[in-house]
Amino acid sequence: MTRSDLHRIPTTLADGRELIYFDDVTADREPAKDTRDLPQVEHHSTARFDVLTGEWVTLAAHRMNRTFLPPADHCPLCPTREGREPTEIPDASYDVVVFENRFPSLARSVPDTEPYVDDTPLWPQRPANGRCEVVCFTSDHDSSFTQLPLSRVRTVIDVWADRTAELSALSGIAEVFPFENRGTEIGVTLEHPHGQIYAYPFLSPRSAQLLAQAQAHHERTGRELIRDVLEAEQAAGTRVLVQGEHWTAFVPAAARWPIEAHLVPHRQVPDFAALDDAERDELAALYHDLLQRFTAFFGEEPPYIAAWHQAPVGEGRELTRMYLQLFSLRRAPGKLKYLAGSESGAGAWIGDTTPEAIANRLREVAS
Amino acid sequence: MTRSDLHRIPTTLADGRELIYFDDVTADREPAKDTRDLPQVEHHSTARFDVLTGEWVTLAAHRMNRTFLPPADHCPLCPTREGREPTEIPDASYDVVVFENRFPSLARSVPDTEPYVDDTPLWPQRPANGRCEVVCFTSDHDSSFTQLPLSRVRTVIDVWADRTAELSALSGIAEVFPFENRGTEIGVTLEHPHGQIYAYPFLSPRSAQLLAQAQAHHERTGRELIRDVLEAEQAAGTRVLVQGEHWTAFVPAAARWPIEAHLVPHRQVPDFAALDDAERDELAALYHDLLQRFTAFFGEEPPYIAAWHQAPVGEGRELTRMYLQLFSLRRAPGKLKYLAGSESGAGAWIGDTTPEAIANRLREVAS
Repeated sequence: MTRSDLHRIPTTLADGRELIYFDDVTADREPAKDTRDLPQVEHHSTARFDVLTGEWVTLAAHRMNRTFLPPADHCPLCPTREGREPTEIPDASYDVVVFENRFPSLARSVPDTEPYVDDTPLWPQRPANGRCEVVCFTSDHDSSFTQLPLSRVRTVIDVWADRTAELSALSGIAEVFPFENRGTEIGVTLEHPHGQIYAYPFLSPRSAQLLAQAQAHHERTGRELIRDVLEAEQAAGTRVLVQGEHWTAFVPAAARWPIEAHLVPHRQVPDFAALDDAERDELAALYHDLLQRFTAFFGEEPPYIAAWHQAPVGEGRELTRMYLQLFSLRRAPGKLKYLAGSESGAGAWIGDTTPEAIANRLREVAS
Repeated sequence: MTRSDLHRIPTTLADGRELIYFDDVTADREPAKDTRDLPQVEHHSTARFDVLTGEWVTLAAHRMNRTFLPPADHCPLCPTREGREPTEIPDASYDVVVFENRFPSLARSVPDTEPYVDDTPLWPQRPANGRCEVVCFTSDHDSSFTQLPLSRVRTVIDVWADRTAELSALSGIAEVFPFENRGTEIGVTLEHPHGQIYAYPFLSPRSAQLLAQAQAHHERTGRELIRDVLEAEQAAGTRVLVQGEHWTAFVPAAARWPIEAHLVPHRQVPDFAALDDAERDELAALYHDLLQRFTAFFGEEPPYIAAWHQAPVGEGRELTRMYLQLFSLRRAPGKLKYLAGSESGAGAWIGDTTPEAIANRLREVAS
């Protein structure tokens, strides 16, 4: 379903990592060579099973020395420009570009590990094989996703679809998770507008939780959980922000973040790759609209996390569907929501507003 | 098991909240009257069931206006001193004091709610009845738990035991959770050395997870999960920090925070109230020691969360035991661990060190 005017041009970086240009404006690229003398980063990512929670925790000790907020003229996500140090992107310009993270949490070909920590069956461990990709949304360092033209948002959706299809096909991948962290307040280490894609070798804890809930709901009712949630939100209407032909955006009934919205497809579509053209077009418009509202809500672009939950690659795929969870830790201008004892220690979330109040405000600020 | 030289003197604040002095030095207190004209804070805390995760989320809209980092001379946790505005503590001095939070997340006598959000059975809701208490560890505004003398740490343990017993006996309480948030970097709104106790009307998500794991382990092996974890850590030895007669401290095999230690009792003891004198004495010494190591690790007191997990008040109580989870978000001086897309969105934790490296460092810095 990728548009025919999107040009996909793969190349390879000096240390063997894959890089793909996705050109929606630029025509006829002949990719430049990566001239850097780049040492190989050794990956020793290991996932350990936490028997107290039933979750996998990834340890990636090689990430300790990753790049942290470099000055703008050393941004590794800008194109490589004449007279400046080469960046991660060898070409002098790009539209959208994807490449493998140099300091990945989940890596290709991690060496084998012992099956258990300290030979103790209580503590299974495994190589954290997977893949972490960086997606640069624009070559303009000072822009942001919120400021992209709609046509570019549409391109990024095609890119997410391309990457989801390709990463899902790699052996051992259980889930493909595209996301964007925006804002230094949530620890973004590079300011250049970009997102990431993690291809996990296990189901993420959030997806495992959702799948367990969806499974139980299906056994009880014979129905798909997210469909029922979507229809209930549409019927109640109290938290709906916008209802399109293919997607509906709403503040969820039990929102846990100070500002949170879900954008859910009307069809049971597992991931980006399975979206048709009409769904992609409308998604571009509605996601763009949601980001504008988040900005209007605070009077400036807030820090946010855009989490694109997709159905598992394997088992359980038919029980759920893709959806966007867009949220911010900002409670009010200058005030962050902190995850302290109750949230971080006990996992018990306390909010100081209501989903209906947030929905009202997000409706008021619609442009 | 509370020491006979600890004097427990209850009184009532102007708005009816309970306050209890626990004096370990002061003798013969006649509690002063709270002279403030204090309006009642209306509590409308509601818990909503998040069907996508299976967790309860609490909404406490009245907390939006709580006190936020007041100047030291307006600290509401200092004693009420001659010529200054009255504080939350009417007396001119105290040793340790506990009182009900004025802006509680979980409150007494919350009005009834409709059983479902928008009459939709997918979204159960309930009044968030419970109790939130503040525990002031010392009247010295500029001190910290780490700087307390051992005798005071022992008093606080008795106070936690007293409160656990009393709060567990309230109707509808499923879990009592004492914790301390330390450091403005994790959002502490009052600098005065203090902790909190939440009495939840539901099992916290973390405890529910642990209970599910403990239940599965028990069905498989007939044994208690935390006992097996404790014995495996002792046998491996690679992450043990200190092993006493009644308690062992270790960095857990699948630690998820940049620095994290667990302190686990050797006996299957459900909560503070059930600890005997010898266990309390050793706990005071070992907890004090752990906090000193955290400080030495960073060269200064780091932000931290001390989460005292206790067994459920009701069902499942025999399957688990109390333990301390002490952790910091600080990765290195000036560097915080942020919970971004992978952690906050997907629940998949990525660390950039190993539990063994943290344990080695925490052993080196032992005083």
